[in-house]
Amino acid sequence: MAVNLTAPRADDLLPVRGIRLSTVSAGIKKADQKDVVLIEMTEGTHTTAMYTQNAFCAAPVILAKAHQKQQAPRYLLINSGNANAGTGEAGMQAATDCCKAVAELSKVKTEAILPFSTGVIGQALPVEKITAALPEAMDTLSDTGWFAAAHGIMTTDTIAKARSVQLTLSGKTVTITGMSKGSGMIRPDMATMLAYVATDAAVSDAVLQTILHKAMNHSFNRITVDGDTSTNDACVLMATGQAGNAEINSITSNEGEQLLAAVTDLCRYLAQAVVRDGEGATKFISIAVQQGKSQEECRQVAYTIAHSPLVKTALFASDANWGRILAAVGRSGLVNFDLTKVSIHLGDVCIVEQGQPASAYTEEQGKKVMDETEITITVQLGRGQAEDLVWTCDFSYDYVKINAEYRT
Amino acid sequence: MAVNLTAPRADDLLPVRGIRLSTVSAGIKKADQKDVVLIEMTEGTHTTAMYTQNAFCAAPVILAKAHQKQQAPRYLLINSGNANAGTGEAGMQAATDCCKAVAELSKVKTEAILPFSTGVIGQALPVEKITAALPEAMDTLSDTGWFAAAHGIMTTDTIAKARSVQLTLSGKTVTITGMSKGSGMIRPDMATMLAYVATDAAVSDAVLQTILHKAMNHSFNRITVDGDTSTNDACVLMATGQAGNAEINSITSNEGEQLLAAVTDLCRYLAQAVVRDGEGATKFISIAVQQGKSQEECRQVAYTIAHSPLVKTALFASDANWGRILAAVGRSGLVNFDLTKVSIHLGDVCIVEQGQPASAYTEEQGKKVMDETEITITVQLGRGQAEDLVWTCDFSYDYVKINAEYRT
Repeated sequence: MAVNLTAPRADDLLPVRGIRLSTVSAGIKKADQKDVVLIEMTEGTHTTAMYTQNAFCAAPVILAKAHQKQQAPRYLLINSGNANAGTGEAGMQAATDCCKAVAELSKVKTEAILPFSTGVIGQALPVEKITAALPEAMDTLSDTGWFAAAHGIMTTDTIAKARSVQLTLSGKTVTITGMSKGSGMIRPDMATMLAYVATDAAVSDAVLQTILHKAMNHSFNRITVDGDTSTNDACVLMATGQAGNAEINSITSNEGEQLLAAVTDLCRYLAQAVVRDGEGATKFISIAVQQGKSQEECRQVAYTIAHSPLVKTALFASDANWGRILAAVGRSGLVNFDLTKVSIHLGDVCIVEQGQPASAYTEEQGKKVMDETEITITVQLGRGQAEDLVWTCDFSYDYVKINAEYRT
Repeated sequence: MAVNLTAPRADDLLPVRGIRLSTVSAGIKKADQKDVVLIEMTEGTHTTAMYTQNAFCAAPVILAKAHQKQQAPRYLLINSGNANAGTGEAGMQAATDCCKAVAELSKVKTEAILPFSTGVIGQALPVEKITAALPEAMDTLSDTGWFAAAHGIMTTDTIAKARSVQLTLSGKTVTITGMSKGSGMIRPDMATMLAYVATDAAVSDAVLQTILHKAMNHSFNRITVDGDTSTNDACVLMATGQAGNAEINSITSNEGEQLLAAVTDLCRYLAQAVVRDGEGATKFISIAVQQGKSQEECRQVAYTIAHSPLVKTALFASDANWGRILAAVGRSGLVNFDLTKVSIHLGDVCIVEQGQPASAYTEEQGKKVMDETEITITVQLGRGQAEDLVWTCDFSYDYVKINAEYRT
């Protein structure tokens, strides 16, 4: 069902020196499904992360943030099938117990373990099942573990999302491999569903943080499926420094910019993959808002369009119902807004000019664009120079079906 | 399909002295469907109205506002099947031409006519069809015309929405009769879809305006189906002064309060009727948010829950997925928000206390409430004394179906 998205092959995903992964079945999901992923980072790895802005954040998010302040992370422990959210003190204890179990097996401090959970909200995390599976996870760590891990973190995803890229920095080949999961409760805000990106590049902590922030703002922080920000969103960027390049200490250096561009491209691919696999999605929609007074107001308009159930159902039906787009622009809350300066394009076709139907527009032109599976809606506000871009999907019968039957 | 809503019978709707209505077919909608309603107000009638806050407002809304400033209205001309929105200068001319035609037939000024349109956005209003039908509309005006009119203003509505009440003011029987339409693109903001309420009470202009504002804030401004504020929303309150009661000049007088209470009750019925007939609705949901710092933040939380596709699909599936409710509360944007003070009830069943699953809660209890067709979600924020209340419906397969096929 995913829109123009093909699954990675195992050999598409390149090992990152200093990173080993394993994927096992703990019995959280249905029988024999993989549901626990362990990621090991070599000593000296720099790690940065961004988490959900939802005030209702899950126990593992609270604990991961606390651990990260105390200690450089050495292991990421991820389970799917249970979000350990809304579980109160018991949930905090459960997450801590899982970290302790990894720490004992690996002989590192408990604070060097970051826990992540994704799945159903409000059910007790089965700690014993997870800890029972950890010895196997520890024994099977491998640098070729990305493919299995990308499958192990899935919940309602219909397809695994992962990719590798390579570039040359100070004469050394640098690898970046990343994976993401998520297809519902998706409207990340300074964070995302779950995404893990690792590189063997040598890069300072400060630059790594800057790269993650900048990359997020052109990828995971510009997507929405249903407007619902999750309780468990997290995105982790790891740099092991094993590639042998000269350590990057400035984001504005040539190599800093190259690494930023490569990480951003990879994150954009992974973020768009989440939208392409959005629950019930049949189309991939880019919404570009231009000529605004600020990037913020462009984003506000873009999200209002992206969240409108009427626009999303019209996209599903391939109905060039531009009135619904214009109505969404009109209600997006801009101050001193003059609708007669607005123009709207569907793909290359101008459908609205100066707030009115474009004189040359025909329904056939609109229908032709809407029949595509990749559609760009461009809104020009005619009041400034700023712009922004958001990606989303349409709203189909299957979205309702998937979410009505999620727990049955 | 409407949730616990029965159609009015013709004799349920009481004439309002000084108001006559007619309903005819102009051929805007499919063959033989009624699509033009004319409402005549006797001279001296006080009229007040509220309109959509969408910056993209339709031609009739712009014209009705302008006319109302110049002249006490004598006729409301309403068509269904075509919204005359996004139609630019041609749309303004079309609305003006229709008003002129009524003015000529009735020998009043053009500015005494208020136009209203509802239906598809962005198609030219068929002025000639409407003006051709006006002589019949003028000839058939009748004080028993409410029942036919309530049907004539319908678009995707599955059921007519209208009601009458009577009360005694200064020894005189006062009648209030009203009707509304709408079931999609519903999230009124200081305005509503289309609603017309008339009374024969004698009441000053100033008090009538206050009554409309207050009544709206407990009715049409507290409902949402899909979060999409329409381009054509309007609510009109007319008072003909024919009942013979002493004119009400103060909202705080005993009779001012009685009239306010009666109008508010009627508007609440009509507003809830729109939600009960919401596109694809199978359940009627009340969302009460209490213990907030301000009414505004309570409303913000209530609308975030009401617009969450994940909450709405869970309601459709009768799934007591309280995690989705708590996640919506968490992302609603409250400042300095402490989730550990939050409790949530489904009906009488406490499902969350202090931000955690209630200890005595069982899934069976939640399921029992969710199986009802009328469900109240109560959220207590634990940070103040303010409260507010919003009504909405669930999100079903039929919502997608209705909106995907709207123009086909």
